[in-house]
Amino acid sequence: MAIEFGSLIGSDHASVVSMNLFVALLCACIVIGHLLEENRWMNESITALAIGLCTGFIILLTTKGKSSHILVFSEDLFFIYLLPPIIFNAGFQVKKKQFFRNFMTIMLFGAIGTLISFWIVSLVGAIHFFEKMNIGSLEINDYLAIGAILSATDSVCTLQVLNQDETPLLYSLVFGEGVVNDATSVVLFNAIQSFDLSHINLSIVLQFFGNFLYLFISSTLLGVLTGLLSAFIIKKLYFGRHSTDREVALMILMAYLSYMLAELFYLSGILTVFFCGIVMSHYTWHNVTESSRVTTKHAFATLSFIAEIFIFLYVGMDALDIEKWRVVSNSPGKSVGVSSILLGLVLLGRAAFVFPLSFVSNLTKKSSQEKIGIKQQVVIWWAGLIRGSVSMALAYNKFTMSGHTSLRGNAIMITSTISVVLFSTVVFGLMTKPLVRIMLPSPKHLTRMLSSEPSSPKSFTLPLLSNGQDSEGNNGRQTIPRPTSLRMLLSTPSHTVHYYWRKFDNAFMRPVFGGRGFVPIVPGSPLEQSVNQWH
Amino acid sequence: MAIEFGSLIGSDHASVVSMNLFVALLCACIVIGHLLEENRWMNESITALAIGLCTGFIILLTTKGKSSHILVFSEDLFFIYLLPPIIFNAGFQVKKKQFFRNFMTIMLFGAIGTLISFWIVSLVGAIHFFEKMNIGSLEINDYLAIGAILSATDSVCTLQVLNQDETPLLYSLVFGEGVVNDATSVVLFNAIQSFDLSHINLSIVLQFFGNFLYLFISSTLLGVLTGLLSAFIIKKLYFGRHSTDREVALMILMAYLSYMLAELFYLSGILTVFFCGIVMSHYTWHNVTESSRVTTKHAFATLSFIAEIFIFLYVGMDALDIEKWRVVSNSPGKSVGVSSILLGLVLLGRAAFVFPLSFVSNLTKKSSQEKIGIKQQVVIWWAGLIRGSVSMALAYNKFTMSGHTSLRGNAIMITSTISVVLFSTVVFGLMTKPLVRIMLPSPKHLTRMLSSEPSSPKSFTLPLLSNGQDSEGNNGRQTIPRPTSLRMLLSTPSHTVHYYWRKFDNAFMRPVFGGRGFVPIVPGSPLEQSVNQWH
Repeated sequence: MAIEFGSLIGSDHASVVSMNLFVALLCACIVIGHLLEENRWMNESITALAIGLCTGFIILLTTKGKSSHILVFSEDLFFIYLLPPIIFNAGFQVKKKQFFRNFMTIMLFGAIGTLISFWIVSLVGAIHFFEKMNIGSLEINDYLAIGAILSATDSVCTLQVLNQDETPLLYSLVFGEGVVNDATSVVLFNAIQSFDLSHINLSIVLQFFGNFLYLFISSTLLGVLTGLLSAFIIKKLYFGRHSTDREVALMILMAYLSYMLAELFYLSGILTVFFCGIVMSHYTWHNVTESSRVTTKHAFATLSFIAEIFIFLYVGMDALDIEKWRVVSNSPGKSVGVSSILLGLVLLGRAAFVFPLSFVSNLTKKSSQEKIGIKQQVVIWWAGLIRGSVSMALAYNKFTMSGHTSLRGNAIMITSTISVVLFSTVVFGLMTKPLVRIMLPSPKHLTRMLSSEPSSPKSFTLPLLSNGQDSEGNNGRQTIPRPTSLRMLLSTPSHTVHYYWRKFDNAFMRPVFGGRGFVPIVPGSPLEQSVNQWH
Repeated sequence: MAIEFGSLIGSDHASVVSMNLFVALLCACIVIGHLLEENRWMNESITALAIGLCTGFIILLTTKGKSSHILVFSEDLFFIYLLPPIIFNAGFQVKKKQFFRNFMTIMLFGAIGTLISFWIVSLVGAIHFFEKMNIGSLEINDYLAIGAILSATDSVCTLQVLNQDETPLLYSLVFGEGVVNDATSVVLFNAIQSFDLSHINLSIVLQFFGNFLYLFISSTLLGVLTGLLSAFIIKKLYFGRHSTDREVALMILMAYLSYMLAELFYLSGILTVFFCGIVMSHYTWHNVTESSRVTTKHAFATLSFIAEIFIFLYVGMDALDIEKWRVVSNSPGKSVGVSSILLGLVLLGRAAFVFPLSFVSNLTKKSSQEKIGIKQQVVIWWAGLIRGSVSMALAYNKFTMSGHTSLRGNAIMITSTISVVLFSTVVFGLMTKPLVRIMLPSPKHLTRMLSSEPSSPKSFTLPLLSNGQDSEGNNGRQTIPRPTSLRMLLSTPSHTVHYYWRKFDNAFMRPVFGGRGFVPIVPGSPLEQSVNQWH
């Protein structure tokens, strides 16, 4: 006790050691990820996963097989602290024009596609194979849950292998699908937990769809309203007049509030915080000072970045958790069999919706440029195969009691999920970058590779002036033809919706909530300074 | 269960409600604090404290006196998550030249002053008064602890009432003292907990001072080393070439790592993270891209800002905790008496070192400009009277078992500490701003009040170009006379130290670790871009 002189932390010293190790590993992931960046196969997720696996292995050796992780996997940690910044940042940085132009396709993939994948994995595949294999005591709910768990694609890892500037259409499709898919699979999962599915009838199916619609619409509305409220408050109070910190703090807190409010009302926090991010980048971001813009843009990205690495490090370390493997170790063949079957079902389930739904989506498009080509469909299919942290979190929620399980069936499901996550992240993840290069060689991409000057020069000026929506502001009116008849509305619905939305946005929304070019120039206000600064 | 459709958070719904309420209150504090900013009495801390008190009162009414807070006070939350960003940001934003020029005075106030204050509050005051008053079963260790608890000034609140630009000398003295004081009182407190003080002899006193010196030096070294390591890594790897997020993430993680490492080695995390902040702003900050500079500057300030509001909201809400008040409610007079005595001792204890030590400090200064005038001494005395979150956390640590107590003596100590904290924060806090204006009316201050253009225009350009160290860079060599003899070293020791430090810094440190003007200009490197951008 005499040496415990400066320390004040109440918890035991072992947890301080764990935290040190974990923070040091996070730093190591960043440095090693940076060193491997030029490598054409690797990405930050795989690096973190590999470091996590190595560390888990070392801990396993030093503790003589007793433990492999330094932090116990906690769903709360994941869903309350790590997921919100990632999804919010995704909404904040997404190219809104691309996203909304492809909105119908994204919804088709994200909602209908996930349901098809779920149906194939659980009801067509797992239930038939596993009932013959005699794996513990699994019920219909367990089969359905495994379907929902393995329908959740890992948008985090996917985003690291696709590039928003090189393949904008693909990026927005895969990424948008990922967000809607996250929400859909979580909703599905909860529906399975709460509904009695032993006797399905029409009323239950209708109730399920009704609930899904209610959830989707109300979550989106909540996110939009919170975002608008933040824009309104900051515009009215001119925070920038006094303090950048106050603006940034308010944006962070209100974004987090939107997520927690959704949880409060039993809605989908993921959807809410995603749409809150979109609204904040469209309105709020334009109402703050220049320094706040740079700060929020990079601070949100950094938080998201740290959370991503944290998750993969965590998953890698937790994958070796000896407790679950010991339960299944007496039948290794069965475990490998289950994992392989699930992996096959994932491949099949995704193929079963990407190609047919792309065909459906192409029917509504006139120009061949907007259509999704067969090579692009293959990339979409492949990039969405990765299963990640959401699957892990859902599997832990379903098949363990606060991280522990002793039932053989549950242990097999957990270890199989871990196997699918590891295999898909490492193998599919490693092969996505090369696949994109082979399938879609773009001239832009080559120039970027050859150029010695990287993307950082634009990181200071471009985000401020364009934010990647260059053609959205004033050119919007020229590029979109004015719809003159009902026929036009039917033939190009998304363009028409976009046209009327811009009209409404300019006439009503921006004057009230602020936004690019619609913050009145007041002496000493943020905008005037920025105008003076740049011209 | 059927309605719990989108939610995935494992913990109970009550904690989700609490988190919502708390985040909403944080937002309210920011907005109300902004509205009251023009008010000459208020500051953000008092606003948060008042909102916390009101909310606590409302919760007390709605729960019919059962509870007054929505989150249980946790030392871990405070010392692991809230304090580090505040202290790190303090080190990161401090004007280094002022700080090091007054280093000896700061150490005098922070270390010796705290010991004098501790000695007066505990051994001269409390022990004599309280032994006659018959308050529960208090031992010598308890009296010593209360002295250490009430020697911890609240640097957070103090900083809000003093202005770095208006009163630079005062700010650096009071602020620097606050940081050293935080460390000293925590060290004192831990020493009291671990030493057997019933029979004090010379060896224990020597051991105590030895430990203090070891702790101070090793904590400082650890902070400096971690900061230098971060500078070295970022300089060597040119993170800016690829990603702003990676640089910012690494800075945040390494800063946090320094704090946790200090806790790992039983050192003072407060001192470590403070010096890590100073080193990072001197070296690391100059090695990153422009966007990273803006982002880190404001992101650290924002984190610190949120943590500060969080603490005061928390303290306000916790002040009404009915459990402790119930224990002391049968002797209200005694409780008021104890609080008043402690408050008097705090006033006396601070007066007993500010005026004598200022006199000592003035003896070493030649020019009258550098001397601390009597009016300034009064302000220093007054501004440091505020007791805050560190006192609360220490009191909880000493007198409760995880937030609960049933012993009467302990309950009185807790409620008295709360009373002193509330009274000093509200009354002394409210009166500091007007006092500074009366005692030290500055022309600068008046122009700033009259000018309609506020401080935000500089918030974008100035932090990048000067960071408040305008005269530090190239002018340093001109303003500081070259010491030609030993006499010079004796007469102006701090200037001489500064001169040799600058020589060493320019010749060895900056070429290795980077820093202003010493990052080599490489095509595509952060600096070249910034140079192109600004010229």
